[in-house]
Amino acid sequence: MAAGLPIRRIEALTDGVFAIAMTLLVLGVELPRGADSLWSRLLVLWPKLACYVLSFVMLGVLWIGHHYQLHHIRRTDRALIWLNLAFLLVITFLPFSTGVMASERLDPAAVALYGGSIIAAGAALYAHWAYATARPALVNPGLDSKLVATLKLRIVAGIALSGVAIAVAYIDTRISLGLFLVLPVAYWWRSRADDLVGDDAPD
Amino acid sequence: MAAGLPIRRIEALTDGVFAIAMTLLVLGVELPRGADSLWSRLLVLWPKLACYVLSFVMLGVLWIGHHYQLHHIRRTDRALIWLNLAFLLVITFLPFSTGVMASERLDPAAVALYGGSIIAAGAALYAHWAYATARPALVNPGLDSKLVATLKLRIVAGIALSGVAIAVAYIDTRISLGLFLVLPVAYWWRSRADDLVGDDAPD
Amino acid sequence: MAAGLPIRRIEALTDGVFAIAMTLLVLGVELPRGADSLWSRLLVLWPKLACYVLSFVMLGVLWIGHHYQLHHIRRTDRALIWLNLAFLLVITFLPFSTGVMASERLDPAAVALYGGSIIAAGAALYAHWAYATARPALVNPGLDSKLVATLKLRIVAGIALSGVAIAVAYIDTRISLGLFLVLPVAYWWRSRADDLVGDDAPD
Amino acid sequence: MAAGLPIRRIEALTDGVFAIAMTLLVLGVELPRGADSLWSRLLVLWPKLACYVLSFVMLGVLWIGHHYQLHHIRRTDRALIWLNLAFLLVITFLPFSTGVMASERLDPAAVALYGGSIIAAGAALYAHWAYATARPALVNPGLDSKLVATLKLRIVAGIALSGVAIAVAYIDTRISLGLFLVLPVAYWWRSRADDLVGDDAPD
Repeated sequence: MAAGLPIRRIEALTDGVFAIAMTLLVLGVELPRGADSLWSRLLVLWPKLACYVLSFVMLGVLWIGHHYQLHHIRRTDRALIWLNLAFLLVITFLPFSTGVMASERLDPAAVALYGGSIIAAGAALYAHWAYATARPALVNPGLDSKLVATLKLRIVAGIALSGVAIAVAYIDTRISLGLFLVLPVAYWWRSRADDLVGDDAPD
Repeated sequence: MAAGLPIRRIEALTDGVFAIAMTLLVLGVELPRGADSLWSRLLVLWPKLACYVLSFVMLGVLWIGHHYQLHHIRRTDRALIWLNLAFLLVITFLPFSTGVMASERLDPAAVALYGGSIIAAGAALYAHWAYATARPALVNPGLDSKLVATLKLRIVAGIALSGVAIAVAYIDTRISLGLFLVLPVAYWWRSRADDLVGDDAPD
Repeated sequence: MAAGLPIRRIEALTDGVFAIAMTLLVLGVELPRGADSLWSRLLVLWPKLACYVLSFVMLGVLWIGHHYQLHHIRRTDRALIWLNLAFLLVITFLPFSTGVMASERLDPAAVALYGGSIIAAGAALYAHWAYATARPALVNPGLDSKLVATLKLRIVAGIALSGVAIAVAYIDTRISLGLFLVLPVAYWWRSRADDLVGDDAPD
Repeated sequence: MAAGLPIRRIEALTDGVFAIAMTLLVLGVELPRGADSLWSRLLVLWPKLACYVLSFVMLGVLWIGHHYQLHHIRRTDRALIWLNLAFLLVITFLPFSTGVMASERLDPAAVALYGGSIIAAGAALYAHWAYATARPALVNPGLDSKLVATLKLRIVAGIALSGVAIAVAYIDTRISLGLFLVLPVAYWWRSRADDLVGDDAPD
């Protein structure tokens, strides 16, 4: 049993934080009161609902990315635990930045705040991976260095795309939202080719 | 040990989301202020309390259904993880649609929104099961094809019943609520006959 | 490994619901605004803080009681899962009844609602234990019938005490609160004598 | 397998409470409405955001400390479970005291409340460790008595520092906030030297 107690509890804390963040997103969506029909009051909510779905999908991508890393990490040290906590700090911030973007979606500053928190999550994930894979004692023996590089590249690509989405917001924030949606789709597409999530090393 | 790391973490995220959704339902129930006696102020809440209990039971049915599926799935791929996340997305939406139905229970549109989210949960559960069972590498060897079909049929029956409940709402929304309550009772009744939940395959 | 997958997931859902209910209790405590000094504004909160601590301790007693039962149960069937869900339904209701008692603590009806939810939790816990222990296939072989009876008696005693606390509320609600506090202390006292929680059966 | 069922469930409850407390902290941060630009409205939030980050880091320190203790504890008794619940009670209180400090950060009383809750968490953690390590049956055989003393000393140092931070608040609350920030940094620094977190005892 290479992965000892610490990995298990980091997983538990991480899964808990993600589960709560995912479930809290919808709390930001509130039905407006009024004399209009229910459907028209629900229709007014569509930008908030879109932001909630987008952030849920974003959290899904980040959760899978994190879980993928832990799959190859077999022990932790204190620095790695704190890198993980830094990642979780950003995750707990996402419901806030999602709420801001949902209520001010035409303001480029709101998109910048949202994109900035996605970039921060990516940066924490990158630091977590780079730190662990630079220390052979922390990862599974025989970890493919090509895989290490591929995962790094993917995170960098996601960060770059978020940066572009922020820049574009100053032209039209709707293009930014579209670009954010490209991110999970692109990850999905790429990873279909080299799907390794379910590949437990033969034990 | 067939079920590797991924299954365990999907379970953890799923159990977390369900635990939070179940606990958040009651947050929608708030005691009205006023000069009336406490009992009469609580009595006013009964429709909200009924919706909370209904949704809790609904979440229980969906949780058991999901857990039942994972019991027979031994590995995942990325598509299955995303089908699972789609299911969880609908679960996180349920506290919202429950809240809408609780406050607008005489409006057929509110019942349609609620029934629609139950149908969406059923559809995600169906897709999850159909996808996994179509790939022998993902399920336990020797999975009974009759069981596969039975589970599919049960989900389809639940979806059909929810559809009827929505249609009936345009006559009287109270009949719809009654039909939604039939759903868990029917599942309970049927599954008493062929109870397999606790039947771990002999290992 | 007697305890199979189902027990583990029931534990996960239960621990999640308890963790959330315990953490939500404090959300009902809000600092009043005003020109008074912070200490005096905090002092005004003491009944709410007392209710929060009381309910936290109550949840602790119920969580230990539940965990104690599962320690002796090795498999579940669908009825037992639903008894467990009924127990969790009551647990998710506790933050609501705590909030009502915190804001209307001089009203016997609020104490009755709170005591009623404690009694309901006890009744669900009793039904869970009685159902499981009446079926030898569900519990660990060699489960002591004296232990079965002792746990039943303890739950009945707790229910009786809560009933007394409700009755007494119509004289003075403060005596009721004192009686509720006796409950965890009494459990603690009794169970010191025959402490079995940490006693894993020799494996 | 020395650590039996109880440890696992205590971990699950603890990880759940921490995950929720960490995620709830941000709920206290709300964007003010107004005609100002979004950046200036976000800028106004910096003290709230600073308190949220500080408390998140504090929770991280406490979570690691708790996990570190459980790493060396192999069984529990009822008193230890209740010491753990007392610790969790304080953890669930932290979002409240963080919110009070965030909104009244110039008031020494708010700093005293916050520092007091950190001290209470430290005291519970100390009692938990002292109780367990005084009973050889509860800890791993061969637990180094120097390690026992080191952990005690660290907790005492954290409590002392929090006490100083409270005292200093009556001069200037900003110095207190700085001192609270020293706490995690100091823990980090010290524990780098004697890092044992990832050191599973050879099994």
